[in-house]
Parts: sequence; structure tokens; C-alpha cells
Amino acid sequence: MNVKGTKSSRPVLNGDILLTQIKQLSEVGLDGSGGRTRLAVSEEEKKGRDLVVGWMKELGLDVRVDKVGNIFGILPGPSGELDNALMLGSHIDTVINAGPYDGCYGVLSGLAVARAFRESGMTPPRPLAVAAFTDEEGVRFQPDMLGSLVYVGGMSLEEGLAAADEDGITLGQALEDIGYAGSEEPGFLIPSEYLELHIEQGPRLDAEGLRIGAVEGVQGISWWRVTIGGKANHAGTTPMNLRHDAGLAAARVICSMREHTLAAGTTLAATGAIAFEPGLINVIPSKATFTVDLRDPDGEKLLLAEKALAECLEKVGRDEGVTVTSEHVASFEPVVFHPELIQKVEDAARRRGIPSMRMVSGAGHDAQMMARVCKTAMIFVPSVEGISHNPAEHTEREDLLLGAELLLDVVMDLLEN
Amino acid sequence: MNVKGTKSSRPVLNGDILLTQIKQLSEVGLDGSGGRTRLAVSEEEKKGRDLVVGWMKELGLDVRVDKVGNIFGILPGPSGELDNALMLGSHIDTVINAGPYDGCYGVLSGLAVARAFRESGMTPPRPLAVAAFTDEEGVRFQPDMLGSLVYVGGMSLEEGLAAADEDGITLGQALEDIGYAGSEEPGFLIPSEYLELHIEQGPRLDAEGLRIGAVEGVQGISWWRVTIGGKANHAGTTPMNLRHDAGLAAARVICSMREHTLAAGTTLAATGAIAFEPGLINVIPSKATFTVDLRDPDGEKLLLAEKALAECLEKVGRDEGVTVTSEHVASFEPVVFHPELIQKVEDAARRRGIPSMRMVSGAGHDAQMMARVCKTAMIFVPSVEGISHNPAEHTEREDLLLGAELLLDVVMDLLEN
Repeated sequence: MNVKGTKSSRPVLNGDILLTQIKQLSEVGLDGSGGRTRLAVSEEEKKGRDLVVGWMKELGLDVRVDKVGNIFGILPGPSGELDNALMLGSHIDTVINAGPYDGCYGVLSGLAVARAFRESGMTPPRPLAVAAFTDEEGVRFQPDMLGSLVYVGGMSLEEGLAAADEDGITLGQALEDIGYAGSEEPGFLIPSEYLELHIEQGPRLDAEGLRIGAVEGVQGISWWRVTIGGKANHAGTTPMNLRHDAGLAAARVICSMREHTLAAGTTLAATGAIAFEPGLINVIPSKATFTVDLRDPDGEKLLLAEKALAECLEKVGRDEGVTVTSEHVASFEPVVFHPELIQKVEDAARRRGIPSMRMVSGAGHDAQMMARVCKTAMIFVPSVEGISHNPAEHTEREDLLLGAELLLDVVMDLLEN
Repeated sequence: MNVKGTKSSRPVLNGDILLTQIKQLSEVGLDGSGGRTRLAVSEEEKKGRDLVVGWMKELGLDVRVDKVGNIFGILPGPSGELDNALMLGSHIDTVINAGPYDGCYGVLSGLAVARAFRESGMTPPRPLAVAAFTDEEGVRFQPDMLGSLVYVGGMSLEEGLAAADEDGITLGQALEDIGYAGSEEPGFLIPSEYLELHIEQGPRLDAEGLRIGAVEGVQGISWWRVTIGGKANHAGTTPMNLRHDAGLAAARVICSMREHTLAAGTTLAATGAIAFEPGLINVIPSKATFTVDLRDPDGEKLLLAEKALAECLEKVGRDEGVTVTSEHVASFEPVVFHPELIQKVEDAARRRGIPSMRMVSGAGHDAQMMARVCKTAMIFVPSVEGISHNPAEHTEREDLLLGAELLLDVVMDLLEN
């Protein structure tokens, strides 16, 4: 142990303050729905930023804001320089009608780790930075994870600031308006490691009775919008073999993609939206439009899923005598986190005798951007019934505390070795 | 030949007047869409009624209107009584944005037959009545075929007149408003036979290159509205085996009913309308609502189709862990027309050397109501590509004329034998 300090041999996490701050931040932007809405860089989100920045200052952190509005609270190392930092973070913007934990939990747990050092009177052997990235949710400004994307150089600052919301207000303008157009260049502090603690937002840990997920990466995403053109005809007078039923063709694609996932194992496929035209009980649909959301942690298997979709569309088009067009509306390659950090998360859980599993994140996170520039991993805690992006989003108090303790464990492991 | 007359040995159909009248009636209610809209008992439909009544009067027919607005133009037999009449008819109300032929063709061909008698100077051996029934389409007032249903006693006059449109206006009031609340009791003239000439509204004759359909009956209909309740979840974080995907369940039902029809032969099944909630690309549907339209000429096979639907819903509900509710929104038993009349239609086609087929009507018609009280049959002519309820509804001029000639043939056969 080469962590410098006098009051204690190890920093101690203050769970009460963490839970209190989570609650306080969750009350910013309450929208009367039972949830809260703090869209990125809005007036409501500014209140959340002010709260977090205030807490950073209470801890004596060096608060820096970059030109895309990302906030950093830095606990300097012994030398006072920013080299070889360990960064903890997430985001505090929310979707519409959100739950209390998504993003905030990671930022405030980072603060709890910094607080543990402060309260123990210990100075970390290298800098510890707590980050709150701008516009992770991507609801107001697209794409999502915009702040971390710009931070790692995946998008130019100019392009990022030019992103406009539905009212035509640019991110740059919005940052000026709320006073969070900072002076640091994005990427001014490239850490050696990045750790993000987050709720799972899925049901796996909860369903399997596990308390910690050692996240191995973020699965790839491939989103499609499919349009099938058939022929409207009377449902009572058109024999089955003379139909060109766009709706039936769509149903066949949906069922076929389910079959593909069963055979493929890790691939996910969903159709969340669909519409038939003209949409009458006794008219064979002339048109069906629907979405396909494909995901896989393995890039090659994601390509196979795309191939399966294309082949299915071609076959259904031929079989049913319908036209098929598909538009690729979004695509993200899978991200693989750093094996060393993943192992440290798993080891930390094992040391505490906590049941854990390795898993791939189904949702996107700032960590996948940071993984482009430094060793990165994530820690998941269970979401009850997997519910998220919903006021009913819930993680048990004990799991929130355990996740933060484990984050501290991994931080100590990284700092000590 | 015991038809009385002097000018000619056989009445001759005037095709030019028939086609001219079809065109004139088709121009009433033009709605700027390329089609026409003459909803039952509307101001526009009144203009169509006035035109038809005018033409009836030009032929010296005895025009009667009953209390539900059905119009009859009667060419009396030698005795002047109404006994043992032969009725020809259909309807002149339309759907929204309709084609020119649906219904009108049958009414105006009936007039053409009456005209053939008038122009030949012959008196039919028994009364010939031409009927235009009220509200066949059922767009403004439900149920469809309301006028003929009331006429044959399948619905009381009071109930029929109380049917209200979306604005709360009753059929009774609407008839008063346009001056077509007649004085005859519905059913005042129960004929011995009813013949309805109609466009097929389906593709079979056109697809098979046949020109005449000898209609054996009207298939049964069973309409369902199905609601599937699943669980909204993140499409990226929810493993396939932990999903309760209402949309996938709906797609499975649609595909399964297609499979049923392939095995059953004559059964038709269609899903014309569907909706998923919340309807987002990355959220597994929590709710799917969709329609199922089942048809079969054979009542027992229709019951089997209903059973197949119920079994499929139960299985899908169990497999996917979703709730399923289904509402039976409409049901009509199959109707079988009179073998003697069907044979006469087929014989008439054979005598002219015209390729014909026996077929079952996929759509509902006033004939299915009249079949409750008298010998009934229908004659179909081809609909190009099966298109109907659409401004593009088309039947070739030669087929329109042939159908009317064949109607006259069958009328002569019935009157002579």
C-alpha cells in the first residue's frame, strides 16, 4: 500500500451521503409524472449541474468545464499534475420522464470515492477525476453520448456544438445560455483508466440473483426501417394465393428474425414500431413499415444478423410478391473493454464474496467512447425487473451501496498496483 | 314463349342507355379524389336517388318508397297485382371515395331489363320490380345492408330508423331530411325470386380469364379485435428469453392464421390493422392490438378457423408469457343461394358460349338478405385486378354489357318457365 495518508489505512465510503445526494439530484426536474426530466443543457439540467459542481467544490476538487460542457472534478495527485489520472464518471442528463439512477449513480459514486479520500485525509498516488459528460441520452441533441464522443475526438468540437435541438437551438448556444460553455479543450485530460458504475438497465442480474456485473463491453447496434409495398385488396374477395399482403410479409420478417436469434445465441432482435396502410379490418395492407433493432456483442455475429435480415426480406419479397426497401438508420460497432480492468472488477466482487457475472452492456454508455483512448471498464448493479428510462426504475439501496464500495475497491486496486 | 307483346319476340337490351346512365350516376357526388362519395341518405345520395327515381318514372314504373327508404320501381304484370314478382336490384349508396360500379350497376341493369320490356312493348307475365336498397355499404349507418335487412324482417323498422351516424343523426331523421321516408311497410312486396347483378370486387374472374360468375352464396364472416399485453423493456438489455414481446406474439398469430388457411383451402384470413405500444425502435412492445378477418363459405370451416385462432392465441400467450384478449366484433353466417337460380345463371352463360364459373361472394350483398325470403342468386362480372371500393374500380364495357344481357336472359328464362 503506497497510498499516502495519516488518518486511516484505507479510505472509507460514506454511503449515507451518497444516497442523500442521489435523492437530492433525483428531485431536480421532477415533472409531475412521478419521474424527472432533465434534458441535456436545459434549465432543469443546469440546476443538476450546479448541484454537482457545488458538491465537487465542497470536496475541494479542482472543477473544470470543457468547451462541450463536460464537467470534471479533479482530486490532484501528489505532484499536482494531471498525468496518469484515473477517471470515474457518467452523466446527469436524463430522458423524458426518467428514473432516479441512470447516469447520476455513476457520477455521484465517483464523488463518493473522492470524498472517501478527502475524509480519510489521504492523497491518491495519482490524480482522480470525476466526470459528468454532456448529453449522454441524446434526447435533445443527437447523437447520444455526444459529450464523450467529442471528448475523445470522435466528433469535432464544431460539429458537436452545432448539433441543434427540435427548436433549432444549438448545443453551443444552449451551453452559453446556462453558463456551461467551459474553457478547457475537450480531451485536455486523457486518463490512464476510466471506470463507470451504472445500473444495468436490463433484467439479467435481477433475474439471476446476482449483484454485480463485470461489464466486458457494449454490444453493437444495427437499426433498420423496413418498408414493404403490397397491394390493397378486399379481404373477403381476394383468394389467399392472389394476395400481396404487406402486413403478412412484415409478420413473417418479425418471426423469422426471432428464429435467427434463437439459433444465433447472443443476437437480439426486436421490432418496436409497425404500421399498416390503409389500416382497415377488411382491407389487405398495401403497405407495412416497421423497425428492426439488431444487437450483438460480437461484430461478426451482428453482420450475420444483418445478412439474415437481408435474406429474409428478399425471400419474403419473392414469396409474397411484395416490394421491400430497407434503410439502415443507425449502426454502432461493438466495443470491447479492457481485460485487465474487467478482471479487477471480477476480482473485487470475489474478494467480497459477492455473486457476479461477466456481461455485455445492452445500452450505450460514455464508457464506450472513453474506451477509444484509455483502459476502460464498467460495473453494473441490478435494475429491479430490468426497468429503466421509466420513473419505476429501481435499484435496491444495498446494491447501490455495494456498487459504490466495489468501485472504491477497484480504484484502490488500480492505485495500489 | 308466353311473354305477351307485339313489337318483338324478345325484349332487347339497350346497352347505350345503360352505359350512359351508369356514367351519369357515377358523376353524382364526385369528391375531387377521382372517386365519388354518396354516403347513405346524404344530400349527395339524394341526388342519386332523384336521378334513379326519374329514370324509373320515365319508364312508367310504379315507384314506391318504403319506411326505411328502399326504392322500388315496379313494372306490373298483366293482372296489375304484386304477387309472384321477380325482383332485380342492388344499391346506389357508396363508400367514401368509391368507384363507379359497386351497387349502381345492379340497379341500372335492372332498369335496363325493365326498359327492354317497355321498348319492346311487351308486358311480363308477372310483375318485375327494380330495387335500390338503403345503406348497403354501412359506412354512415351500421350495420351494412341495413335497408334489405329491415326489408326482410331481420331487424325491426324502429331499430333500423334509430341507427345513428357519427354526428348522432338517425337514419329516420336523415330520410325525413332528404324526403325519402316513404309510406310502404318494409316487406310489402316479397318477390318469388331476387336476382342481383354485381361486379365481383375480387380478382378471380379477371385472373382466370372468365367473364361470368354464377354466385352460389356469400361466405361467412368472423371479425376479431385482438389485444396482446406484454412488457415494455429495453430492446438492447433484455435477453430474448426474458422478453414478453407483444409485437412478436402478434406476428406469430398473423403467420399462424396464414398457415391455417393454407391447410384449410377455402378459408380466408387477413390482418388489416395493427398497432404496437409504445411504438419506439428500441423498446419491446408492451401492447399489440390487431384485427383478424376470417371468412369461409362453409359455416363449419369458419368455426374451425375461429377455433384455430383461439388455439393460436392461447398457445402464443403461453409461449410468450403475454396476456391475450379477443373481442368478436362481427359475425355473419354463410348464405347459400338457390340451386335452381344458380343453375339458370350457369345455363345462360353456357347458351351464350361464355366462360363462367361458380363462385362464392367474398363481400356482403343485399342478395344475402333477400335469400331469407325468396329464391335468390347473383351474377358477377369481372373486376379488373379485383380492385373495388376505390376510384380505380373498373369493369370492361363489354363485360358490363354482357352481364346485363345475361341478367335479361335469366329473367326471360324465369318468366318463360
